Amino acid sequence: MQFASRLDNVETSAIRELFKLLGTPGIISFAGGFPDSAMFDVEGLKEASARALDEEPGGALQYGATEGYEPLRTQLSAFMKTKGVDVAPSGLIVTTGSQQALDLLGKTMISPGDKVIVEGPTFLATIQCFRLYGAELISAPVDAHGVKTDELEKLIAEHQPKFVYLIPTFGNPSGAMLSLERRKKVLEMAVKYQTLIVEDDPYGDLYFGEAPPPSIMALSQGVPGSRELIAHCGSLSKVLSPGLRIGWMIAPPELLSRATMCKQFSDAHTSTFAQATAAQYLKSGRMPATLANVRKVYGERALAMGAALTRELGDAITFTQPNGGLFFWARLTGANGKIADASVLAKKAIAQLVAFVPGAPFFAENPDLATLRLSFATANVEKIEEGIARLGKAL
Amino acid sequence: MQFASRLDNVETSAIRELFKLLGTPGIISFAGGFPDSAMFDVEGLKEASARALDEEPGGALQYGATEGYEPLRTQLSAFMKTKGVDVAPSGLIVTTGSQQALDLLGKTMISPGDKVIVEGPTFLATIQCFRLYGAELISAPVDAHGVKTDELEKLIAEHQPKFVYLIPTFGNPSGAMLSLERRKKVLEMAVKYQTLIVEDDPYGDLYFGEAPPPSIMALSQGVPGSRELIAHCGSLSKVLSPGLRIGWMIAPPELLSRATMCKQFSDAHTSTFAQATAAQYLKSGRMPATLANVRKVYGERALAMGAALTRELGDAITFTQPNGGLFFWARLTGANGKIADASVLAKKAIAQLVAFVPGAPFFAENPDLATLRLSFATANVEKIEEGIARLGKAL
Repeated sequence: MQFASRLDNVETSAIRELFKLLGTPGIISFAGGFPDSAMFDVEGLKEASARALDEEPGGALQYGATEGYEPLRTQLSAFMKTKGVDVAPSGLIVTTGSQQALDLLGKTMISPGDKVIVEGPTFLATIQCFRLYGAELISAPVDAHGVKTDELEKLIAEHQPKFVYLIPTFGNPSGAMLSLERRKKVLEMAVKYQTLIVEDDPYGDLYFGEAPPPSIMALSQGVPGSRELIAHCGSLSKVLSPGLRIGWMIAPPELLSRATMCKQFSDAHTSTFAQATAAQYLKSGRMPATLANVRKVYGERALAMGAALTRELGDAITFTQPNGGLFFWARLTGANGKIADASVLAKKAIAQLVAFVPGAPFFAENPDLATLRLSFATANVEKIEEGIARLGKAL
Repeated sequence: MQFASRLDNVETSAIRELFKLLGTPGIISFAGGFPDSAMFDVEGLKEASARALDEEPGGALQYGATEGYEPLRTQLSAFMKTKGVDVAPSGLIVTTGSQQALDLLGKTMISPGDKVIVEGPTFLATIQCFRLYGAELISAPVDAHGVKTDELEKLIAEHQPKFVYLIPTFGNPSGAMLSLERRKKVLEMAVKYQTLIVEDDPYGDLYFGEAPPPSIMALSQGVPGSRELIAHCGSLSKVLSPGLRIGWMIAPPELLSRATMCKQFSDAHTSTFAQATAAQYLKSGRMPATLANVRKVYGERALAMGAALTRELGDAITFTQPNGGLFFWARLTGANGKIADASVLAKKAIAQLVAFVPGAPFFAENPDLATLRLSFATANVEKIEEGIARLGKAL
């Protein structure tokens, strides 16, 4: 059987092999990118789902508009308003998780050979998703304050990309938060180079202390001409439930209408059953308490992991303590002859019954073999301390 | 903004313009492709959803395997067995409606310029879906017994297509049922030309009298070497609820694993919440009664529409009475100087407050302007009689 040539652009993920080992009994895993199932507001979602079927069974079970279920678009518009983004319900479309927003951006925007700038490192599924549409990915370097805007500007000027893809707030895997100053620079660059900026923001609500700076989309309202150059992807997956598969995309009208056409032929529309449930949940007023809860619990876990890493691995590792999101991004220093290759450490770690993800696959170009990603979301404090102690032993 | 070149291959649907008029008050619409919301087993789905959240809240709300939620794959495997198809749960993947199965087939199989043979007429969203991946579509003619296999064979030999896409049972829009003899011929051709056959089967459970012949997938078990050349797409949309967005695809392992990879970057997985609900519903044993109910009601409506068409339009129209599915496919004869162009009639019909869909857009090549599609699913018998009377007036 001869498959489409676009499949030649992607490889089976190295991480996939690692994930097969996670079933080993007794393993403590920091490898996933999941929220903790124990945090789901099951009762609230059960009520929301029952209400959806009671109040408008036709709407929840019938075909719906490709753009999204109107009551959910209204709720999402209001939710975005609480985050400083002024968008009408018609200014966003509902997507089947924010993964589908990425897919639609690829389908709508990328012709084979087009260049797209991403962060180095960036979300693994973004790399593969865009490559399937034939994108040539250019990697812009990141530090603790997010993408380095000086270098980003050089890359934009040199490559004239179709768009720039950023996860500015608690990025996956970097955990980094793009500073307010750099956010403004990104907006200025969008206007200067007339370049579309895609802001992927699944983690922005997951902050542990102070709220992060406003999103690039929110800030665009203050930078004349920039709003029409920003696409913003949101998601309920990390804060409410990934299983609903509810994401959304805000984008300039012309892009939004073409992405909607592409979505029509991708899955017709996102499950109206899930959409009506999400709409009822947002309407119920339970979201603020749910957010407060996940922020508190993940915040405690992040602190515990930071302290354990310092205690158990000392100068063999460097990292920036994340103020939100789900991840530590760390780098092996190789101090005192310790292991400096994260994929080597990953194998030794599995033998000690602890798992994490090496960082190399998260780079579209020039992988840094010393990097690794640790999720603090799914293990409790006790398991985190035990797991990091095992990691120290493996090292 | 410059969009991807693949968008040049599709046009905004002519039908879309028509659908904007359907909001006109008092209109009776035979234009949709929907099941009737009044037929949904709301109570059964409500129970199923509550049970899904009670029994395995983590599974229903967390990220899941791209291939599908295991309990649902098990139920679908059993459901297919009742229809004569022997497939292990691992031999199928769950898709976000069967529309996504088509999208994944396109993404996995079609390189720009590849040829794909479809029926003329065929499902409109299939045409656009495959064209977005750059397919060149070849149209094989259809009569009341489905695709004409002699002509199909000539086209396969001439074009060596990447695959052949058929809706053999109560096709949309043709309503036709591929005869048993022709099904066997299709299987022989698959083997003879080593050509992949895609069987899209959303309507196979919606029969009104005798059950249709076994699916091509079921029959493949009796034609050596053919099973590895068949992909089969199923759906709960027409018989249970489209809003769940639950479809599935059975395919040869190599194709299935690549389609799964493509799905990973399309939407990660289908809503586990919807999947767990569908699994509980199938497990509850309510499906046979639900099927019996939709068959009975749609069967009555199909009879009423056939009788009304004969009574009101007489020799101005020809059609074959469908034995299942949702659609009448008809042809204006132009007898006695009556209108013979369905798009002209569609406009006059709207003025009489009745709507249907002209058939031309359903042809990938050589549109037949005299054809039209009428759905009998959503209007009750009284409305059907009134609507067809209005159509007679419009003519």
